[in-house]
Amino acid sequence: MIKYWPTNKETSTKIGVGQSQLFLMSRIDETSGTLSVGEFSKDIPFAVKRYFLVFNVPSTEKRGMHAHYKCHQFLICVKGNCYVEVDDGSQREEIFLDEADKGIYIPPLIWSKQHKYSEDAVLLVFASDYYDPDDYVHDYSKFCSIVAKN
Amino acid sequence: MIKYWPTNKETSTKIGVGQSQLFLMSRIDETSGTLSVGEFSKDIPFAVKRYFLVFNVPSTEKRGMHAHYKCHQFLICVKGNCYVEVDDGSQREEIFLDEADKGIYIPPLIWSKQHKYSEDAVLLVFASDYYDPDDYVHDYSKFCSIVAKN
Repeated sequence: MIKYWPTNKETSTKIGVGQSQLFLMSRIDETSGTLSVGEFSKDIPFAVKRYFLVFNVPSTEKRGMHAHYKCHQFLICVKGNCYVEVDDGSQREEIFLDEADKGIYIPPLIWSKQHKYSEDAVLLVFASDYYDPDDYVHDYSKFCSIVAKN
Repeated sequence: MIKYWPTNKETSTKIGVGQSQLFLMSRIDETSGTLSVGEFSKDIPFAVKRYFLVFNVPSTEKRGMHAHYKCHQFLICVKGNCYVEVDDGSQREEIFLDEADKGIYIPPLIWSKQHKYSEDAVLLVFASDYYDPDDYVHDYSKFCSIVAKN
């Protein structure tokens, strides 16, 4: 499991799983509250067309379990915590997301699983494309076969 | 205070404060968790360039207290709850945000205040523009003067 994290917003960190990267987003802590912010195509490495939120996930549940052909994604656990596994067909890493300023960039053709959600967890996902059911690879063997040819 | 809310995602509701609108986003409740989703320039009435998250806000704190000249915003309280006040210089309404599928669209030249955050509240804001300090109107009298001329 990944134990380190980028220490400033200028330094994203590759984790040895394809082009997957960890990002530390800008964060301002004040007595009036905390603000964390990101700009698309700048801090986040793509323009965004869709967001989704995942919550009320039982701690025993596994979600994701697919890859995308074309869609880029960026995951932030904005409340609580969860674990994200990324897999490029030969390397696999698990990342613990527990702060609203920690983001994971998952490029196309990376298999991902999200699990061990805390009871209060809210996972925010930004996607580079509108929803397209044909962009999903749901079978892990097929995924391995696709990336082996790349 | 607004007591009603749109009952389906096709029907946004104007609330009599400029072009401010309430939206009900798509939501899928399953035993494996809840998913809520929105697509920019489709479900949400603008393309997005920036997001920010606001949390750890003391319940006595008031935030916002400004308008934008050009920037469109869309607010979702993805965890906990908070109150959002919108004001077009002649009409004012307060909206209670308490679900991750409830969104408020705040167009340019609407004054907004967010307050009475619950301890666990996380407010997610989508913005149509990159950060520009010159786009803010911080003085309420000046704001009223600007909208009176429009």
